[in-house]
Amino acid sequence: MATQGRVKVGIIGSQFEADIHAASFQIMPDEAEVVAVASPTPGHAKALAERYKIPRVFTDYRQMLEENDIEMVTITAPNALHCQMTVDIANAGKHVVCEKPLCMTLEEADLMIETCRRKGVLLMYAEELYFTPKYVKAKEMVDQGAFGRVYLVKQSEKHFGPHAEWFWDVSKSGGGVFMDMGCHGIAFCWWFLGRPEIKNVYCQMGTYVHGDRTKGEDNSVCIIEFANDAIGLIEDSWARRGGMEDRIEVYGEGGVTHADLHMGNALPTYSEYGYGYAVEKAPTTKGWTWPVFEELWNYGFPQEMHHFARCVRGKEEPQATGEDGRVVQQVLYAGYQSAGTGRKIALPFKPQGVKAPIELWQNPRT
Amino acid sequence: MATQGRVKVGIIGSQFEADIHAASFQIMPDEAEVVAVASPTPGHAKALAERYKIPRVFTDYRQMLEENDIEMVTITAPNALHCQMTVDIANAGKHVVCEKPLCMTLEEADLMIETCRRKGVLLMYAEELYFTPKYVKAKEMVDQGAFGRVYLVKQSEKHFGPHAEWFWDVSKSGGGVFMDMGCHGIAFCWWFLGRPEIKNVYCQMGTYVHGDRTKGEDNSVCIIEFANDAIGLIEDSWARRGGMEDRIEVYGEGGVTHADLHMGNALPTYSEYGYGYAVEKAPTTKGWTWPVFEELWNYGFPQEMHHFARCVRGKEEPQATGEDGRVVQQVLYAGYQSAGTGRKIALPFKPQGVKAPIELWQNPRT
Amino acid sequence: MATQGRVKVGIIGSQFEADIHAASFQIMPDEAEVVAVASPTPGHAKALAERYKIPRVFTDYRQMLEENDIEMVTITAPNALHCQMTVDIANAGKHVVCEKPLCMTLEEADLMIETCRRKGVLLMYAEELYFTPKYVKAKEMVDQGAFGRVYLVKQSEKHFGPHAEWFWDVSKSGGGVFMDMGCHGIAFCWWFLGRPEIKNVYCQMGTYVHGDRTKGEDNSVCIIEFANDAIGLIEDSWARRGGMEDRIEVYGEGGVTHADLHMGNALPTYSEYGYGYAVEKAPTTKGWTWPVFEELWNYGFPQEMHHFARCVRGKEEPQATGEDGRVVQQVLYAGYQSAGTGRKIALPFKPQGVKAPIELWQNPRT
Amino acid sequence: MATQGRVKVGIIGSQFEADIHAASFQIMPDEAEVVAVASPTPGHAKALAERYKIPRVFTDYRQMLEENDIEMVTITAPNALHCQMTVDIANAGKHVVCEKPLCMTLEEADLMIETCRRKGVLLMYAEELYFTPKYVKAKEMVDQGAFGRVYLVKQSEKHFGPHAEWFWDVSKSGGGVFMDMGCHGIAFCWWFLGRPEIKNVYCQMGTYVHGDRTKGEDNSVCIIEFANDAIGLIEDSWARRGGMEDRIEVYGEGGVTHADLHMGNALPTYSEYGYGYAVEKAPTTKGWTWPVFEELWNYGFPQEMHHFARCVRGKEEPQATGEDGRVVQQVLYAGYQSAGTGRKIALPFKPQGVKAPIELWQNPRT
Repeated sequence: MATQGRVKVGIIGSQFEADIHAASFQIMPDEAEVVAVASPTPGHAKALAERYKIPRVFTDYRQMLEENDIEMVTITAPNALHCQMTVDIANAGKHVVCEKPLCMTLEEADLMIETCRRKGVLLMYAEELYFTPKYVKAKEMVDQGAFGRVYLVKQSEKHFGPHAEWFWDVSKSGGGVFMDMGCHGIAFCWWFLGRPEIKNVYCQMGTYVHGDRTKGEDNSVCIIEFANDAIGLIEDSWARRGGMEDRIEVYGEGGVTHADLHMGNALPTYSEYGYGYAVEKAPTTKGWTWPVFEELWNYGFPQEMHHFARCVRGKEEPQATGEDGRVVQQVLYAGYQSAGTGRKIALPFKPQGVKAPIELWQNPRT
Repeated sequence: MATQGRVKVGIIGSQFEADIHAASFQIMPDEAEVVAVASPTPGHAKALAERYKIPRVFTDYRQMLEENDIEMVTITAPNALHCQMTVDIANAGKHVVCEKPLCMTLEEADLMIETCRRKGVLLMYAEELYFTPKYVKAKEMVDQGAFGRVYLVKQSEKHFGPHAEWFWDVSKSGGGVFMDMGCHGIAFCWWFLGRPEIKNVYCQMGTYVHGDRTKGEDNSVCIIEFANDAIGLIEDSWARRGGMEDRIEVYGEGGVTHADLHMGNALPTYSEYGYGYAVEKAPTTKGWTWPVFEELWNYGFPQEMHHFARCVRGKEEPQATGEDGRVVQQVLYAGYQSAGTGRKIALPFKPQGVKAPIELWQNPRT
Repeated sequence: MATQGRVKVGIIGSQFEADIHAASFQIMPDEAEVVAVASPTPGHAKALAERYKIPRVFTDYRQMLEENDIEMVTITAPNALHCQMTVDIANAGKHVVCEKPLCMTLEEADLMIETCRRKGVLLMYAEELYFTPKYVKAKEMVDQGAFGRVYLVKQSEKHFGPHAEWFWDVSKSGGGVFMDMGCHGIAFCWWFLGRPEIKNVYCQMGTYVHGDRTKGEDNSVCIIEFANDAIGLIEDSWARRGGMEDRIEVYGEGGVTHADLHMGNALPTYSEYGYGYAVEKAPTTKGWTWPVFEELWNYGFPQEMHHFARCVRGKEEPQATGEDGRVVQQVLYAGYQSAGTGRKIALPFKPQGVKAPIELWQNPRT
Repeated sequence: MATQGRVKVGIIGSQFEADIHAASFQIMPDEAEVVAVASPTPGHAKALAERYKIPRVFTDYRQMLEENDIEMVTITAPNALHCQMTVDIANAGKHVVCEKPLCMTLEEADLMIETCRRKGVLLMYAEELYFTPKYVKAKEMVDQGAFGRVYLVKQSEKHFGPHAEWFWDVSKSGGGVFMDMGCHGIAFCWWFLGRPEIKNVYCQMGTYVHGDRTKGEDNSVCIIEFANDAIGLIEDSWARRGGMEDRIEVYGEGGVTHADLHMGNALPTYSEYGYGYAVEKAPTTKGWTWPVFEELWNYGFPQEMHHFARCVRGKEEPQATGEDGRVVQQVLYAGYQSAGTGRKIALPFKPQGVKAPIELWQNPRT
């Protein structure tokens, strides 16, 4: 493979997240270019390819993996497919970028990490909150001592339900909103506090609004106690009306800071007539709305993909790895087990034979 | 006692809360007037009396209770004294307004309720959040169907530590910030949701910042599951820098609303020189600050005292009673037990022999 | 007339402002009570009387003035009627509260002031911004030296057009939004700065949106230069979508403060279903809205009427008088003249023969 | 010169704005690279060069212009030098990026435009507000019809005074805050409204706080009437405490939008200890502050320089040109003349013999 020039990228998937990946590489084009896309549904990959001028299109990602010049492949498929795809990509000798959550089970996580290690490719975990500019600023202030010792970090992500059908089917997703978006908050708090040991996890969840559509939880509250005597409080919801919410709060003995990616950045706007686009999952553009500007950049997606491409060239060390994804996976296990038992669950927690984390909610292990 | 005219009120205490009571009756003067104040420290009651032109001053509240014309007495003394004072006031045939939390133990709560019932006087529980105008507006919108079924209510109250020394001494206070301010959030969520049965309580707490001053917790996170399939999330802190925070969030299947009593009402202000007063527990009036206006009115204290006076005259039914305080007390027990065991605690939960709720944190009952 | 007890009040009018007056006396009932209402349209006064339990109803206000026990009469009729009503009330020996703007012409203002002076009754000018709690807090901070010398004060008031038809007819109103709401900003800046001499006035205005409904301006920007080397910047609009706006900004050499009565106090709220009431002139209660709480109190109406009643009893000195209204009237003249000539107009400016201030816009005096 | 590859850039200057240019090219590196910097003060250019790894350093910019490979030169020197530098750069056959305001006089503007035209180089005017992402979003919504016809646009920029001494000396700057920052607002409103004909200008200004340091105005309010029946309201100040303010408001018959680049994007933060950097011109990092994230990107500087580099390669058409700067210059003239006469000044307004725009304030032309 090349040792210089722009990294050649293939994308698996053609929907919401695949679009974000393609757009992100276009926003920061100096380190990478997307040369191929693969998606099984006829026409889908082609549509994405046309939108972003991607030259090669495949319906079977395995065929795409045979292209010699592709150096890095990003996975945006449903959670249940992450492991097999990662293994296939690694076996093809290409670097892997895997969307969150890493996979379904801890065994899968181990297999993914081990396979990539063995094949000498990078397994990069696409947690964009590590790159969100506003959140990065909060971490910089912490690192500069602004707040002294931090004892509480909060992260929440809420909207009125996911954009694709497979999220509602827990056999494909592995769980509801805690799996889908709680994984962000878990990764965030852990990273933000400097990756301390995790002592235990408590989680409360329920299906409050969408019981007719899913067996998955649509609201969750999770408390993590870390070994450095700090806690994380993570709230997620598919039952929040009025658009997206993505917020953090940081409390230290010497100060506080808050960041809100939506209402906190947007232009308060009233329109009788509507307009083009407000923000991901906005219900309307009429009346009062909170349009964001440069949405992907403010989430950190282009910066994240830019970083991953530079890692492939050896210019940077991966800041979000398969190991991070595995830590998150174990907290997901513990969270569902906690919701099922009403107790906080100490880590390490590695029950055998789990197929989907959500099982531990309805049938907790003893 | 009189059946018309302004209700004659005596206040027990002379510090922070006593001042709030005296000021509140002055802000809404048409239903009540403060005629006496009692406080054991020589000079303290006199100072309050001069500030508010209160004619009669006592160092022993029992002497004040011998004044025949006094119809209602408000208690602002430390928590450990609430029960005895209530019993004494009731035995003197006067109506009782008791500051939060109601008392130390469930046995005390029962005694207070029973004594007042037997003596035919009202036991009114001073939970001002029931009267906070901004929060009342949120409840009105809920009652008008704005949000459909509500599944999550949050309340938080945070600052950098209490104003009086006795709060730090758990033998006088019964507990730390969960006892001091968590009682507000518990009462609020329960009232806001229409007083549903409480199923269980989970609480996480720690002494993160003030371990040199207190054995009490200085930060707590509490999750309550209600029988109507809604949850309450209550956060309290004595470790929050930058001034007061008092906020709610309401989530229903059909909408959301937020209210913030401080930053959400205040005038964003920058001053090189400082000025008279910003807000309770503000660290400074220089630099950027968030001064409130008509602070007591925006908390609801005058409206609360006005309501209690009208209850004495039979014009209204008490909206906050000893029974409310007892419900809160049981949740406080369950919260400390939960923090001590790492489990959610089902209600009813009535352990015997508790002297201070905080005991259940370090020595949970089996 | 009585020298003690609650002041007996009569209201002229039965619509928007009359309702505010009646409600205000009810919110702060200890100093006054409304005993009569007069309105020419059959049924209107009766409806208001029923809503607020007002015992006496008149269709001719002159008849109401014959009631001996009435001590104070408030005028909420169209601007063109203010002068005659004031003269009639004064001649009946009763104190006058006149809504803003004071009248149509400077000659009327002089007659109103002179008549009240001669008859020994108070002429009180209903500028509620002098009593708006949030704005009063800003003034207190100024008076405490928070910002050093203030060089710029801004006030704006905007919505999408008035609630009653007569406002659109400049023969009844005397002008458009500058007359209707600019009078607030003029009075506010002058009062806020300590009533300094006014040097000159510049005003820009136009009919930008409602040209099919009115000859009056629907948007205005006004700059006032004061003798104490400070300026006022006043913006008003009947062309602002999305609900009410009422804001101030204060700039001193030592600091700044901002206050917003609507978005700055409200509960950010999203509702799929709607609810009872959001705020004056809100277009809807569905979607994102900004409901206020205790609207009248936050504007200062009850405090204003309470103050006026106490003035009648000699307990306070009127803070808003006919003289204030006359100052505003002269600035209204100068503003329209400025808009007509494109020049700043020095005060004093007392053109003869003006019938309605807006005349000076289309036909400025030379 | 090259027809492909990254555009080679030289920077004139080494201080505040030069740093912004160097950093901007580094943030978006795919179209340009800075290869040289020139600054007369020994050591200054070298320091910048080291910070940004710029290989070539000059004390005389004329020497830098002899470097054959440099294709584009950016000017960050004091206003009085812009014209001569532009002429020299153009004569060297290189493209020009000139910081705002374009120059001192209309004659200079004409010379600059004509010289660049004659030499076949681009004269690009560095008005970054055309590229500010949040403001661009507002314009997109307007262009999509969100607000119908826009009748009022506001822009304000305020802080407590400029960072370099030469701004205070009107012989070098040509004027005070209206010249320094009003030029942004003038360009913004004109561009935002689609570059309509400008009918007239009114301006009020004074030296309210910094009279001991400058003869220039430190506060200005400017009203522009456009031929499309819209107005611009522009406020600027060097007398605003508490940090930077850069805001817009847009009012159309069908809606409104607001954008605030500082408080509206920042993380509300309280720190006892302080931290690295809050925002341009922030007075402190202790207490409550409003740190921005990715400051340059949120202003639009990297996007602006990226655009200019692409223009050099013929990939885009310049969106901000010398002609834009000349329009601004004429409004600056009119504004000072207006402040001097108290009248609105009709355009075109081209007085002869002006040396610095501010002359027209103290000695307006007849």
